[in-house]
Amino acid sequence: KKRYNITLLPGDGIGPEVISIAKNVLQQAGSLEGLEFSFQEMPVGGAALDLVGVPLPEDTISAAKESDAILLGAIGGYKWDKNEKHLKPETGLLQLRAGLKVFANLRPATVLPQLVDASTLKREVAEGVDLMVVRELTGGIYFGVPRGIKTNENGEEVGFNTEVYAAHEIDRIARVAFETARKRRGKLCSVDKANVLDASILWRRRVTALAAEYPDVELSHMYVDNAAMQLVRDPKQFDTIVTNNIFGDILSDEASMITGSIGMLPSASLSDSGPGLFEPIHGSAPDIAGQDKANPLATILSAAMLLKYGLGEEKAAKRIEDAVLGALNKGFRTGDIYSAGTKLVGCKEMGEEVLKSV
Amino acid sequence: KKRYNITLLPGDGIGPEVISIAKNVLQQAGSLEGLEFSFQEMPVGGAALDLVGVPLPEDTISAAKESDAILLGAIGGYKWDKNEKHLKPETGLLQLRAGLKVFANLRPATVLPQLVDASTLKREVAEGVDLMVVRELTGGIYFGVPRGIKTNENGEEVGFNTEVYAAHEIDRIARVAFETARKRRGKLCSVDKANVLDASILWRRRVTALAAEYPDVELSHMYVDNAAMQLVRDPKQFDTIVTNNIFGDILSDEASMITGSIGMLPSASLSDSGPGLFEPIHGSAPDIAGQDKANPLATILSAAMLLKYGLGEEKAAKRIEDAVLGALNKGFRTGDIYSAGTKLVGCKEMGEEVLKSV
Ligand SMILES: CC(C)[C@H](C(=O)O)[C@@H](O)C(=O)O
Ligand SMILES: CC(C)[C@H](C(=O)O)[C@@H](O)C(=O)O
Repeated sequence: KKRYNITLLPGDGIGPEVISIAKNVLQQAGSLEGLEFSFQEMPVGGAALDLVGVPLPEDTISAAKESDAILLGAIGGYKWDKNEKHLKPETGLLQLRAGLKVFANLRPATVLPQLVDASTLKREVAEGVDLMVVRELTGGIYFGVPRGIKTNENGEEVGFNTEVYAAHEIDRIARVAFETARKRRGKLCSVDKANVLDASILWRRRVTALAAEYPDVELSHMYVDNAAMQLVRDPKQFDTIVTNNIFGDILSDEASMITGSIGMLPSASLSDSGPGLFEPIHGSAPDIAGQDKANPLATILSAAMLLKYGLGEEKAAKRIEDAVLGALNKGFRTGDIYSAGTKLVGCKEMGEEVLKSV
Repeated sequence: KKRYNITLLPGDGIGPEVISIAKNVLQQAGSLEGLEFSFQEMPVGGAALDLVGVPLPEDTISAAKESDAILLGAIGGYKWDKNEKHLKPETGLLQLRAGLKVFANLRPATVLPQLVDASTLKREVAEGVDLMVVRELTGGIYFGVPRGIKTNENGEEVGFNTEVYAAHEIDRIARVAFETARKRRGKLCSVDKANVLDASILWRRRVTALAAEYPDVELSHMYVDNAAMQLVRDPKQFDTIVTNNIFGDILSDEASMITGSIGMLPSASLSDSGPGLFEPIHGSAPDIAGQDKANPLATILSAAMLLKYGLGEEKAAKRIEDAVLGALNKGFRTGDIYSAGTKLVGCKEMGEEVLKSV
């Protein structure tokens, strides 16, 4: 039997509910493929702030680093919104990403035939959307220095951040993107703002240079403002998108909303060699936390990404993906994806339905 | 008779076609309200590069500064895409904005009842959208220093830019936004990334402090990634949005595409005291340039904004707005907004139809 150590980071809001379900699904799919998991649950975000006063405790990051993969629920909530920066739940997430060096964030946005009506886009525009945003996750303006708020010569406050990319940071995320595109439909669109930003000029130059090594991938470039438009106009034109941290934050959220089902979308954050971090792209939804209303499918599908991208266990991953489709095909829907003629269920019941189909 | 000096900057691509039409409409609407215009046409962007080797000639910026308002067509094109940064058409536009100190960019995104089907969003989502993006235009990462591409200690290239806002820059754009919201439906949403960026923390703090002076305006805050989602999910929730230069670039383009008719959307860029700059938000569309296919309505409506926001001539502005609605109500459509049952016309014919209704 193969054994894996998994760190579970339930976090805040609906995090604990969806993690406990995804854990069961992961265990079940694994055991059917001869895999054994040992789980360790650790605090992060607001939960960690309440418990020990920091958003990413030492114990949590070291457990995460020593494990084979990390499954995260969600972090943040109104309660900590006014905290100072270093005491915000979000800061814990950024520290976790940096600590794990997970520079490559894969965010699929897929419109399932069963859920095409959940999109606010017209059926013919939304139908068949299947794209992947490859977002740089540990660099750029999120982490660049100098940064801060200072008082200038005139006694006036000035807030500043640095967008910065070194060649090797661009190259390594571009390689992940080229390889991702190669395994998909072979089309890569690099998004930047090279008509204005120097960091984007270097970005475009490096990505263009690498293209020679991937002759089977068709590379194009697009300005970020145009990309934000094209995602609305014709999302089907995209296969794989690669972009920097902040543009990726914005565009991947936009793309996810275009599918109409952000309660369905997983993500993977990968490093060069250490364990990967897997999490749903939705937030902690404090307004519905603890009410058995959350959609657990994004976290369940994140567990599938954990198996596939984190452990290389494609068969077990496929079991989970198929089980999710099975539950949807039987008509089960949580509130966020409900439509007339389907069966409305809570978080737990949806989890049980998936478990049955694994 | 009141006299105004208007600088016309046709620019590149479809710019000259749409400017020549908007000029006629402006003249007609003005003369019916007792206004006399004298027009001076100057080169900018690629046209200026071809003519004198720089994207913003001295003569152009000084003529613009001395005039009462500036009407710009569009700039840019494949031809100059590989130019070095200081020789890009876009650089001319940025220099023009900086030179005129037009820090406040107003970008309305409205779904006209006549054009609701042009949107890729479902009718019930798109219908009635009427929002205004107030974008900071002369600061932030577009202009911040230090910036550039340098070689670091390891001999590796590094590209960098600085996102920077001083308190007074935030305050002045926020005031424009509060006043804009006050004249609209009284709702202002400030968009930032205060959970990550220091510049956004200062932004949020200043905007919040100013709210006390505008008790009639309801202020909310939203993270930029969420805003990109909410524009797709439910664009009607927005009245006025205020944000920084780069987020405004992205979100205003996304908002414009949500209306489905970017060929219809004007913009105004205003300074504290000098002349304003008015331009359609669409680009230079080199692929259809010179083919009488462009939609002139965005530039015509920019001329209306010029009258209203630039010269305070609301009556003449109203004449133009009504004339545009008149032409649409008669069923005339350029290719970009054409739908079955309407009359397809070219750029010139659309211009003549508007002119008849002024
Ligand atoms: C919570 C926040 C810091 C985070 C980000 O901006 O990266 C989130 O929006 C995301 O996309 O995972
Ligand atoms: C052409 C480009 C420099 C410009 C910008 O980024 O501001 C354009 O996208 C716009 O929004 O007016």
